[in-house]
Amino acid sequence: MPQIIDGKALAESIRKETAAGVEELQRISGTRPCLAAVLVGDDPASHIYVRSKIKACEQVGIESESHILAATTGESELLKLIRRLNESSRVHGILLQLPLPNQIDKIKALDSISPAKDVDGLHPSNVGKLVQGRARLIACTPLGCIEALKRYDVPLTGRRVVVVGRSDLVGKPLALLLMHENATVTICHSRTRELPSVVSEADVVVAAMGKPALITPEFIREGAVIVDVGISVLKSEQEVAAIFGADSKKVEDFRAGKNVLVGDVHPSCYLKSSAYTPVPGGIGPLTIAMLLRNTLRAAQEESKV
Amino acid sequence: MPQIIDGKALAESIRKETAAGVEELQRISGTRPCLAAVLVGDDPASHIYVRSKIKACEQVGIESESHILAATTGESELLKLIRRLNESSRVHGILLQLPLPNQIDKIKALDSISPAKDVDGLHPSNVGKLVQGRARLIACTPLGCIEALKRYDVPLTGRRVVVVGRSDLVGKPLALLLMHENATVTICHSRTRELPSVVSEADVVVAAMGKPALITPEFIREGAVIVDVGISVLKSEQEVAAIFGADSKKVEDFRAGKNVLVGDVHPSCYLKSSAYTPVPGGIGPLTIAMLLRNTLRAAQEESKV
Repeated sequence: MPQIIDGKALAESIRKETAAGVEELQRISGTRPCLAAVLVGDDPASHIYVRSKIKACEQVGIESESHILAATTGESELLKLIRRLNESSRVHGILLQLPLPNQIDKIKALDSISPAKDVDGLHPSNVGKLVQGRARLIACTPLGCIEALKRYDVPLTGRRVVVVGRSDLVGKPLALLLMHENATVTICHSRTRELPSVVSEADVVVAAMGKPALITPEFIREGAVIVDVGISVLKSEQEVAAIFGADSKKVEDFRAGKNVLVGDVHPSCYLKSSAYTPVPGGIGPLTIAMLLRNTLRAAQEESKV
Repeated sequence: MPQIIDGKALAESIRKETAAGVEELQRISGTRPCLAAVLVGDDPASHIYVRSKIKACEQVGIESESHILAATTGESELLKLIRRLNESSRVHGILLQLPLPNQIDKIKALDSISPAKDVDGLHPSNVGKLVQGRARLIACTPLGCIEALKRYDVPLTGRRVVVVGRSDLVGKPLALLLMHENATVTICHSRTRELPSVVSEADVVVAAMGKPALITPEFIREGAVIVDVGISVLKSEQEVAAIFGADSKKVEDFRAGKNVLVGDVHPSCYLKSSAYTPVPGGIGPLTIAMLLRNTLRAAQEESKV
């Protein structure tokens, strides 16, 4: 039977380690890490994300501030706030929740965050250091994937890893991290030809293209390890039935109005794998845990004398 | 017969285009691009490189300055010079010739160059923007490779490209550029297992690991395109004979005291390819041409009103 990579349990360990680190930092330097979350507009999902990140901070002893700006906020006002947070001695990490309203240039806003406080690892200077193998703050989801693979002792050196998806947030940074772990990495994307055949070369498959259940068993080499970064809410009963089977409990859940989630990997792939990250409960929880660790790290760096 | 990708001729075209751009910039804005080359120490090869870059500048109408510092120069003195060049309104590009003597922290020196003048594309902020597909200044050798492939109409979209070598200077940035050209890119390195078999999947092979003639015909799929970034000076007649054949003219050249060069690709691979960059005369000349184009670009950006 394949091993289930339990992201929830891993995230719990990482949160405990982070809480211990927070306490130690406080004891040594009197500094308590603080995350400032910035949210512009009324997107309900964004509000949920920010609240859950703030709550996660509390649980490990990281302080936080929420800055909720109206949907009509102008770019210059947002930049002014970010400048103030960059200069604040209280704040160690700045999280700018995406998406931003159209009147704001996303790149300009993200670039304005001080690299030392860029806990999402999106600032070009942090991304460049990641390429050069010397980044201190790295995007949370790729970090979560690496952490999952390492803590489950999945061998990477010399192994073939295929990353499907080339986003700035996941695919590209993750491919670089995996390469630094001495894996032989192939990056696939929408223009890749014969995708199933390319993916089936992999000892480790990372699915991060945001296409529900696109990866089917023909993509998977017997015994491969599957890391599924995708998470989609299924919209129709038909979809649910097609993916999970017409008589599955998921169909009942859907009818009962529950959210039915699926990753980029079709669940029928699991049996062919030697280990996999489930959806939900795989990479998702690790992403927030890594945000906490990044915030601690930023505070540790800042407190260095 | 395979097509020879004539880097010398391509470089000549790029130099002409650059010379035209230099003239246009001067006409429009009165600005003449200027490259400042900084060299620390007595390494003879470095002196030759700097001289040839300065000479190449002259040929396209780019001004230049050489700053030759003693091998005993301290880090703070070098940083002071770089600061001065960063602030100089005359200088648009700064080239810090490597290697640097041991008393100087290379990373610190490179990081101190203003990203806007970083014509070698090594500053983390430029590297990060490269990852994000929005860099203006990109490392010259990878740029040269892309240029060669494009000008010879080598299709990249959806094609499998294998990059052998993962250096900050070539392998990593080139893999990213090729991915942005919609290729399916695999990066191999010293820890890759079954290297010949992995490389033989490639429609385009890029060899950039600095191991003379490592790539032999068993690595090459019939009809693949070969880009050879490596360039090594062979040290013994035995090596020359082993690579080029005991009765080749290269052996005579070696005996006559001439430098015999070889790339990372064994010349016996060429016949299997559909096109290849020779060594010398392939990627080498393109690297300097790209440095000139980068210097022009930096001056164009700076002159924008």
